[in-house]
Amino acid sequence: MAVVSCGLSVLRSAEHPAGGRAHGARQDDTRHGEALAPEGERPMTAPLTTIPARRGRAARVRRGQRIRVVNTHGTQVVDTWAFAAEDTAEWMSMEASRAYFLKLAPAVGDSFVTNRRRPILTLAEDTSGGAHDILMAACDAERYGLLGVTGYHDNCRDNLHAALKELGLAAPATPSPLNLFMNIPWTADGRLSWGEPVSTPGSYAELQAEMDLVIAFSACPQDILPINGRRGITTEAHFAVI
Amino acid sequence: MAVVSCGLSVLRSAEHPAGGRAHGARQDDTRHGEALAPEGERPMTAPLTTIPARRGRAARVRRGQRIRVVNTHGTQVVDTWAFAAEDTAEWMSMEASRAYFLKLAPAVGDSFVTNRRRPILTLAEDTSGGAHDILMAACDAERYGLLGVTGYHDNCRDNLHAALKELGLAAPATPSPLNLFMNIPWTADGRLSWGEPVSTPGSYAELQAEMDLVIAFSACPQDILPINGRRGITTEAHFAVI
Repeated sequence: MAVVSCGLSVLRSAEHPAGGRAHGARQDDTRHGEALAPEGERPMTAPLTTIPARRGRAARVRRGQRIRVVNTHGTQVVDTWAFAAEDTAEWMSMEASRAYFLKLAPAVGDSFVTNRRRPILTLAEDTSGGAHDILMAACDAERYGLLGVTGYHDNCRDNLHAALKELGLAAPATPSPLNLFMNIPWTADGRLSWGEPVSTPGSYAELQAEMDLVIAFSACPQDILPINGRRGITTEAHFAVI
Repeated sequence: MAVVSCGLSVLRSAEHPAGGRAHGARQDDTRHGEALAPEGERPMTAPLTTIPARRGRAARVRRGQRIRVVNTHGTQVVDTWAFAAEDTAEWMSMEASRAYFLKLAPAVGDSFVTNRRRPILTLAEDTSGGAHDILMAACDAERYGLLGVTGYHDNCRDNLHAALKELGLAAPATPSPLNLFMNIPWTADGRLSWGEPVSTPGSYAELQAEMDLVIAFSACPQDILPINGRRGITTEAHFAVI
């Protein structure tokens, strides 16, 4: 049994992360997080939604609300997208955000902007160690083909579009994602590599909505590269809109 | 008079680069480059097409052909996009390319891939000094608004879509571009800045087509930040399909 070490009673039902290439089953995925506050962190009481292992979820969020994304088991990358509530052709853009905050990675206080240069999300709090990637594409079926997979493999691109569809929405493209908890180190001469997570169980990133928006997540099903840990175990994660 | 110092007789008609915010006029824009070979560089005889100052151009290219993009006056950033010939929803993707060659910037020999992970262009030759950006969004009207411009400002996003329209094509989004000759230095701790060009007049980058494709360029009209040089002078550039 995987013991969740962050003392979150709400997470007891999540002690059996889906491993390997198993599919995460749809379930009653909203619970109340009565104790989502490891020592030294800000307490919160809000409904928690499961992002099932290897699957996506989306939600509507109002301006001023915060979205806490919890790395429940500590090693799970969560691909994250945001779209303007009224127009899914306006989305959080990593290329516009880099031009806005002039960094290769965000830090607390940095705002992401849309492809129309409007602030959409601000990284308001972060207990994860701060490794979040804004350079790499979401994984997709063709990516797994290049990695030697034959047949279908769960992937973040499909998870995004399925999650939007559950809300009755569609997006005209797959924007470059904010890869929460994904550790992509760079060297001074510009080499990139697939790092292991630095986050810990129960750590989280909190994003403040700067406009009414739709947020979408995918618990990345990457089990070949070490981005979800060298054991290739993919797990669920959780989020709460506060 | 701006003297073009690379000894290209073909470029004599280009000795009056458009400056400031003037619009580049459409003209008879194809000439033959009989001497596009500064000392030590590979000679070429091929029709040259002008990318007018502050404007875009697109062209169809067959697999195996090369596209030489000439920084005619030495300081002009050229935003570059490529789309699969048969489907403009498949495009050259900077986020997928970074995952493919695992670098923050391309070098000779590196191939860019599409959002379906297929190689589309390879950087085959480069005499420009090698500063090409793959991190920053194309400029757009909203970007100039943030920079204090009131009213319309030429921009690369509009130039892309206008150039495609001239070929009877449309793209469903504005992909993150390959910004040829654009110098965006990074620091070891991930800070980015707007550098001045390191390229020289007549220097070029040569891209090999790995599939039948449509290539699109915009001579970037950025005259506020120093990416086209501190004087804010925007000029034409040229390309040839070899």
